[in-house]
Amino acid sequence: MPEPTTREHAAELDAASPLRHTRDLFALPPGRIHLTGNSLGALPRHVPERVAEVVAREWGDQLIAAWNTAGWTELPWRVARRIEPMIGATPGTVHVGDSTSVTLFKTMVAAAALRPDRNVIVIEPTTFPTDGYVAQGVAQAFGLQVRWCDPADPAAALDDDVALLSLTHVDFRSGAMYDLDTVTRAAHDAGAVMLWDLCHSAGAVPVDVSSADADFAVGCTYKYLNGGPGSPAFGYVAPRLHGTVRQPITGWWGHARPFEMRRDYEPGPGVTAMTVGTPPVLALSALDAALEVFDGVSPDDVRSTSLSLTDLFIDLVEARLPGEFELITPREHARRGSQVSWRHERAYGIVQALIARDVVGDFREPDVARFGFAPLYVTHTDVYDAVEQLVQVLAEGEHTSPAYDVKNAVT
Amino acid sequence: MPEPTTREHAAELDAASPLRHTRDLFALPPGRIHLTGNSLGALPRHVPERVAEVVAREWGDQLIAAWNTAGWTELPWRVARRIEPMIGATPGTVHVGDSTSVTLFKTMVAAAALRPDRNVIVIEPTTFPTDGYVAQGVAQAFGLQVRWCDPADPAAALDDDVALLSLTHVDFRSGAMYDLDTVTRAAHDAGAVMLWDLCHSAGAVPVDVSSADADFAVGCTYKYLNGGPGSPAFGYVAPRLHGTVRQPITGWWGHARPFEMRRDYEPGPGVTAMTVGTPPVLALSALDAALEVFDGVSPDDVRSTSLSLTDLFIDLVEARLPGEFELITPREHARRGSQVSWRHERAYGIVQALIARDVVGDFREPDVARFGFAPLYVTHTDVYDAVEQLVQVLAEGEHTSPAYDVKNAVT
Repeated sequence: MPEPTTREHAAELDAASPLRHTRDLFALPPGRIHLTGNSLGALPRHVPERVAEVVAREWGDQLIAAWNTAGWTELPWRVARRIEPMIGATPGTVHVGDSTSVTLFKTMVAAAALRPDRNVIVIEPTTFPTDGYVAQGVAQAFGLQVRWCDPADPAAALDDDVALLSLTHVDFRSGAMYDLDTVTRAAHDAGAVMLWDLCHSAGAVPVDVSSADADFAVGCTYKYLNGGPGSPAFGYVAPRLHGTVRQPITGWWGHARPFEMRRDYEPGPGVTAMTVGTPPVLALSALDAALEVFDGVSPDDVRSTSLSLTDLFIDLVEARLPGEFELITPREHARRGSQVSWRHERAYGIVQALIARDVVGDFREPDVARFGFAPLYVTHTDVYDAVEQLVQVLAEGEHTSPAYDVKNAVT
Repeated sequence: MPEPTTREHAAELDAASPLRHTRDLFALPPGRIHLTGNSLGALPRHVPERVAEVVAREWGDQLIAAWNTAGWTELPWRVARRIEPMIGATPGTVHVGDSTSVTLFKTMVAAAALRPDRNVIVIEPTTFPTDGYVAQGVAQAFGLQVRWCDPADPAAALDDDVALLSLTHVDFRSGAMYDLDTVTRAAHDAGAVMLWDLCHSAGAVPVDVSSADADFAVGCTYKYLNGGPGSPAFGYVAPRLHGTVRQPITGWWGHARPFEMRRDYEPGPGVTAMTVGTPPVLALSALDAALEVFDGVSPDDVRSTSLSLTDLFIDLVEARLPGEFELITPREHARRGSQVSWRHERAYGIVQALIARDVVGDFREPDVARFGFAPLYVTHTDVYDAVEQLVQVLAEGEHTSPAYDVKNAVT
């Protein structure tokens, strides 16, 4: 067995990977090491053709008939059917169509309304900003309060006033992962409703909202699900809540019989009541096609590959650059998502210098270099090569270039 | 001068039309007469290439860098800058990004909040359903009431309880148009805020929200603006309200400094505070390209062509099929949008039989045959040919086919 720090070993790991065939499904530029799939997933090769078909043949030729002939009416549900098994959801429990922020809003309002005698939304201060902002907006609009919990112990913030606990499954900055089952149980034990933000987990780590008995979930589709920039989010509602859940944005697409065009709103069945407006057909078509790359892919293989990639990255960085970085991603597999984040006082310069070498990670305030490992297209060889470039950046001092002064970079 | 009912005369009108060159900008199927541009606008010829470029070159090659290198961050504002002059809005007053229904929701909440001592939203019962549904949802969520007005006299419903008057500029069913100035003045005289739904007017009839002194407007971009199926809506906020208006869906894209990722929400300046989530890049790119067909097009020419088309259609139908239909669209130019709707007991069968002849209008419950005339690509010859087909449908009795029994058609 070769040393774990050789490129040959990395190539052997790739050759033995259960996902060795999925990389070719993506159209990454030659030489690019894309370690920001947790920000924007790579383009699946077949998506351009599908989008072109929808634009020219469906919109251009069929026009309004396409709502039936091209299946546009069913398109959001076709996409939902693809996402459900990826998060352990049963058929008919996921809806798709609005932005992540809008989906968080309507979900938080619906969730808080299930506990009318309670007035607190608990959320972690380290959450991706939009979750906290939306919680603050919901609180202000509906006379509730936001309570910031200790991210290391959200359950400690629960009491009889808490209507909703809203947490991000995998933290966008550190990559730390909560245990869905344990935290959901704690929320329920305290009488609170549980909402999971799956933006940084769906498609990269195992998620089972059913076995966790989560009440609600919301997730992004342009990160590990590769739906394209700004693609619509998904939302999950536990089946036991169907029929009782109400959300406030009562658009016609959520109506029980939208095409009868009646005067009064009547919520549609199940998660239909969570939907709002006319579906964004171009974006949903790209997403529908993009999700095909997961056909036949085992979630266990995704997870084992993800851990193999992040393990290798951590091992190589620590072996070749000892003491240079502070690892802020948990070492324990059970608490790690599919990214690795390092703290470094020159993190911004390091990320920029790596980008100049075609190794693309990203910087997060104030001093974090973040690297995402999308298991379907990042390889062990990529990991080896990325670390090799990182070693060279530091050896050459490229990260200290005045051009990478972080104060000039906030744009 | 030939008779107004000859095809030669129609062709002469086309040859003299100030918009005779714009039809070639659209990729309509040969032989198709598309009279549902008020439902889904035709595909501008250059849009497929732009969308392909965004998918393959921006998303595929540039990935996250494209937020800067391809201008994705500025894309919603680039689109807004195109829409503003089309509705008489000054720069910096329009925002784009969510569905029409979501945009109506956040706008109605923001508008009603400007009159905290009043608790009624007035809306016409003939509005497109989603407007009424959203008003009902807003009312239920915020303890307000919906008051349905007489569409012929909305001002009669105004009193000291009315916070918001929300009306559709051009009625989706009848094509009747309100006078923006008069109605807005009546709302203001009663102390109410005025919201205009421009879904069926923007891009087809003159709109000047500034001279009308409207407070808010919301509009669809996939009808006369040709943005593609489900393309994002726009919203307008009068500049005198900037800084005071607040809407409840406080997503990170509406933050004053989104990329600093602070914990607390702080609304961005002006209409930025009306925006919510990450922009839908593919859809906005298609829309941005689609709006180019309006470059250099005079709103006066759009209006004169629209009236010429609808006049011809009304004249021809009444001349060739006297007494067959009841016209429900106003004859007066000042009260007519860019569509013509007829009542007929077999309206559904007539519309279906015309579609079989490649003349595409649409049916609206309960007995309305609706025909939209997008001035940029519908010609006078189309109008003549559509009426010829209509005459043949009725002469052959095709509309009475059992296949067109309306009871079988509600799907």
